Amino acid sequence: MGLSKKSSPAPTEGWELEGTAEIPKPPPSRPKSGYPQKNAETLSSQYGLHLFLAGLLVMLAWAVHAVGASKAAVFAYLITLMLLQILWMAWYICRRNAQKRLIQGKDTHAGARWLKCAITLFALITLIMDSFKIGFFIGFSNCLSVTEGIFPVTHAVHTLLQVYFLWCHAKDIIQSFKTLERFGVIHSVFTNLLLWTNGVLTESKHQLNNHKERLITLGFRNISIELDDHEPNCNCSIQGLCSIFSQGVYYLYPFNIEYHILASTVLYVLWKNIGRNIEHVHQHKMAFKFQGKTMGTILGLAVFITTIAIVVVYLIQIGRSKIKSESALRMFYLYAITVLTLMCVAGIVALLIYRYENKSLDVSKNPARKLDADLLVGTASGSWLLSWGSILAIILAETHPAYTWFNLPYSILVIIEKYIQNLFIIESIHREHEKVNDDIKTLRIATVSNGSTLSLAPSYKEIYNGTSGIDNGNLPQVVNRNCILPESNGSGSLDEEKSDTSAPVTPSTSDFSLNSKKRPISNKRTILMNIAAFLLLCNLSLWIPPAFGCRPEYDNGLEEMVFGFEPWIIVVNLAMPFSIFYRMHSAAALFEVSCKT
Amino acid sequence: MGLSKKSSPAPTEGWELEGTAEIPKPPPSRPKSGYPQKNAETLSSQYGLHLFLAGLLVMLAWAVHAVGASKAAVFAYLITLMLLQILWMAWYICRRNAQKRLIQGKDTHAGARWLKCAITLFALITLIMDSFKIGFFIGFSNCLSVTEGIFPVTHAVHTLLQVYFLWCHAKDIIQSFKTLERFGVIHSVFTNLLLWTNGVLTESKHQLNNHKERLITLGFRNISIELDDHEPNCNCSIQGLCSIFSQGVYYLYPFNIEYHILASTVLYVLWKNIGRNIEHVHQHKMAFKFQGKTMGTILGLAVFITTIAIVVVYLIQIGRSKIKSESALRMFYLYAITVLTLMCVAGIVALLIYRYENKSLDVSKNPARKLDADLLVGTASGSWLLSWGSILAIILAETHPAYTWFNLPYSILVIIEKYIQNLFIIESIHREHEKVNDDIKTLRIATVSNGSTLSLAPSYKEIYNGTSGIDNGNLPQVVNRNCILPESNGSGSLDEEKSDTSAPVTPSTSDFSLNSKKRPISNKRTILMNIAAFLLLCNLSLWIPPAFGCRPEYDNGLEEMVFGFEPWIIVVNLAMPFSIFYRMHSAAALFEVSCKT
Repeated sequence: MGLSKKSSPAPTEGWELEGTAEIPKPPPSRPKSGYPQKNAETLSSQYGLHLFLAGLLVMLAWAVHAVGASKAAVFAYLITLMLLQILWMAWYICRRNAQKRLIQGKDTHAGARWLKCAITLFALITLIMDSFKIGFFIGFSNCLSVTEGIFPVTHAVHTLLQVYFLWCHAKDIIQSFKTLERFGVIHSVFTNLLLWTNGVLTESKHQLNNHKERLITLGFRNISIELDDHEPNCNCSIQGLCSIFSQGVYYLYPFNIEYHILASTVLYVLWKNIGRNIEHVHQHKMAFKFQGKTMGTILGLAVFITTIAIVVVYLIQIGRSKIKSESALRMFYLYAITVLTLMCVAGIVALLIYRYENKSLDVSKNPARKLDADLLVGTASGSWLLSWGSILAIILAETHPAYTWFNLPYSILVIIEKYIQNLFIIESIHREHEKVNDDIKTLRIATVSNGSTLSLAPSYKEIYNGTSGIDNGNLPQVVNRNCILPESNGSGSLDEEKSDTSAPVTPSTSDFSLNSKKRPISNKRTILMNIAAFLLLCNLSLWIPPAFGCRPEYDNGLEEMVFGFEPWIIVVNLAMPFSIFYRMHSAAALFEVSCKT
Repeated sequence: MGLSKKSSPAPTEGWELEGTAEIPKPPPSRPKSGYPQKNAETLSSQYGLHLFLAGLLVMLAWAVHAVGASKAAVFAYLITLMLLQILWMAWYICRRNAQKRLIQGKDTHAGARWLKCAITLFALITLIMDSFKIGFFIGFSNCLSVTEGIFPVTHAVHTLLQVYFLWCHAKDIIQSFKTLERFGVIHSVFTNLLLWTNGVLTESKHQLNNHKERLITLGFRNISIELDDHEPNCNCSIQGLCSIFSQGVYYLYPFNIEYHILASTVLYVLWKNIGRNIEHVHQHKMAFKFQGKTMGTILGLAVFITTIAIVVVYLIQIGRSKIKSESALRMFYLYAITVLTLMCVAGIVALLIYRYENKSLDVSKNPARKLDADLLVGTASGSWLLSWGSILAIILAETHPAYTWFNLPYSILVIIEKYIQNLFIIESIHREHEKVNDDIKTLRIATVSNGSTLSLAPSYKEIYNGTSGIDNGNLPQVVNRNCILPESNGSGSLDEEKSDTSAPVTPSTSDFSLNSKKRPISNKRTILMNIAAFLLLCNLSLWIPPAFGCRPEYDNGLEEMVFGFEPWIIVVNLAMPFSIFYRMHSAAALFEVSCKT
């Protein structure tokens, strides 16, 4: 198996392998003997894609008012998918509970606690949204399709079970029934993605309607405007509540949308982890502390509060009259330019600090981290597309109303800011954890005190070739002990190991624990911590405007004029969901950076 | 570096690592000391994405007739990109030539010879297309923008230099100036992708015009039809030739489109390989032989010739009158259903054979293969989207003209056929090469003859733990020798090693070479070879209809009726390029499978 054809490991991977390399053993119990995992992967991913593509087309049919396509069809499709996922999750949870006494692998990088907390928070808001929808259905039950009632009920059950599932099983590394599990997990991934798409589509329709209403108010009647959001054809049976329900739902949609996309990323990592072989897992308990981050946090909170104020003013002003709209746009652009400039400066400072601190990067396999990095660049492309559209529109336009000039620096800054921020986050999440480096130091001290003056690498080589005279059978454990230390004893229990500091070949971790406790927080680290906290809050702030309907890309009118109403609306509606998700995702990544720094 | 944080290798990777694991050494010369490679990767990929997004929007602006956007702007943008790439390639080739005496790594999986041959063939046709365009420009030089003349000239130079570059450097593993090279290569990748997009767009516009003309002929005047392909406003100065040039170009576009996408995949693999560390490379010389594949080849050729006939008849008949159109559609569907059924059966038989032959899969790192597999599933999604659209349209439609019923089995078969074929190809390219398995056998014989009756894995364990009494320092070399054997001596020189067959611990490869020469071609292998050859030719055949304008998705009218003209046209134009590329790409992959089996 993988005998001579595989490429050799990169040098960075070399030395731990020496200590831990194993003779290949047959993989644990396979239900279908010999059915190759690579095939199970392809089988299931293709199945998932089909679910998704068929769902997309059902939604497209509904969105373009295709003959015979109704909202009920979309709901029926989604309900079926959710019920299947509920069945699968229930089966999985039961089976896993039955096998509790077996030792099962976990990927500690996957499903971080804070991520699960965020998902739970969004899920709670989603449950409120579901109850609003149920209330709305009860109010109009005479004239609504029955699927409009079943959908929120199923969705609520689905949400509850899925949150429980993610809390208990997000870190699982599935080894048995691999083919079946792959189908279940990929089904869950794409069900969540479709629910996300459905949320995005409903939200986009709502925003587009608002925009059209504003255009009507401003007197643009030459564009073919047809409103899309129909009220039910009967009276509400619960007086007064129906309008609260129908309006309230739209303020809760952004959270529902984030819930589904976050859940699908966690599930995707679970899918990637199926059949993986992990031996060394490291629990870096992360806790967000405000200590030492006061400056960044205060500045960030100031941005956050200002943003909410700006969004409220913007939504009140826009579309009232031409002058009010223009002043709202001007205010928004000026504010965004200020924030983005600050973020750029912060990002550049952080990158410069990294250039002075010469640390190596950890490039080991880690599906959760790879997905994070790919999503950052991938979803940023959404907003880059919009920014390039704006820049092109400004270049091509024949007339330039004064406020449109603010659009140019704004668009350029959006591009630069995300470029820099991605560099910063991706480098941060690949930097080695402080503790690891301390381990190396401890190890080096031990090696030197052992009488060898060689550098780390050659001394290990010698030890392994058996020329250093140390018992061969004993050494791998020493190495292992240093390697897996952060796992075997949590950060709290490090002091317990102080006793055996004297043995040179089996170095204890006391140096390390003393080091890390006494080590003063360096200036550089303080700056980095503040920058991460500041960027985190800025990203959370910048998530609010687009998520709650502040869309200068619609309102400034320049792009619509140049590209035409329809093409530009299509581009915005395709790119905006990714742009919104980018902010939430980068905030999540920055939270992790913030805890690790 | 990667000390304790990295995940351990999968068991399959274990044993070779023991023999070859290395102590980490500092990477070779870095121009910017310590500038992390991960950052260079992010920096350059983001740069490439910006090139691409900006280019997409310039093309979109042109396609939707945006105010102020002209074809000249698109050309100017593309010319700039091509000139930059030409400069970079010239610099790279010169520098590499100057360093010729240095030993430089090569990835033998990348840039296979047959792939380069295909690229060269398509490049030649692209050069003919460029000369047609230059001729067209000379003919209408009075009234055409000068960019229309500069573009084909630059493109021809670009094509010539790029083909030379790919022949000489596609396998390079760049280790010096990594950051700069990354920018150059990613610039080339996205320049080719943009040229591909430009080709696709021009081709789509042309097809859409043809479709609109047919609709006019058939009497559908209610759809807002505006033709998009304007003839120049002056007379052609070269009598008679201009119309040949302008018509001929469209028959050559499909090849130009394939040329750019294939070039960009090869360049992408070059980019992924930058800074990689490859020690064991295996040159499996592949040669396509018709021996033993007669049946598959003949059947495949029959399909190929029939397809050309069907396409010609289809293009003549379609749009002439309602009856002729319907009969053309019926003929096309019946023919496609037959071919797809045959392909499904072939694929299922191949997969069943694989289930009986219990071979392990090679899952080592290999960017070229990973890209192949991802592209297969990714581009198949394009045609799956169209198929699901057709299925949904048939379900939703209120009236069903008789010929539309053929569309249902056709669409379902397209889905199933690609599903099965992807499974077959992905499993095939991951299967271990015959020779490797032979090595294992040789090794097993050697181990058994050494007095041990244990199975392969445990005997190695023993050897490594030093309990088998063999000199520890010597054994890794033995293992290495078996591992890297296909590299150290080409398949032609295997017989040279016959001399030291007597030593049991250092087994020679004579068993293997005798084995592989005498080994009769088994029945299973014959069937697999025939299936691969048949599928290869079928895929090439099925590439022809969509590439040359045979588009039942337009012509059957059902989907347009259900989804509406504009939405369906947008879906088809977005999905079709991927669907077309899928056929060419799967043919390429099947060619590889065909050679390896």
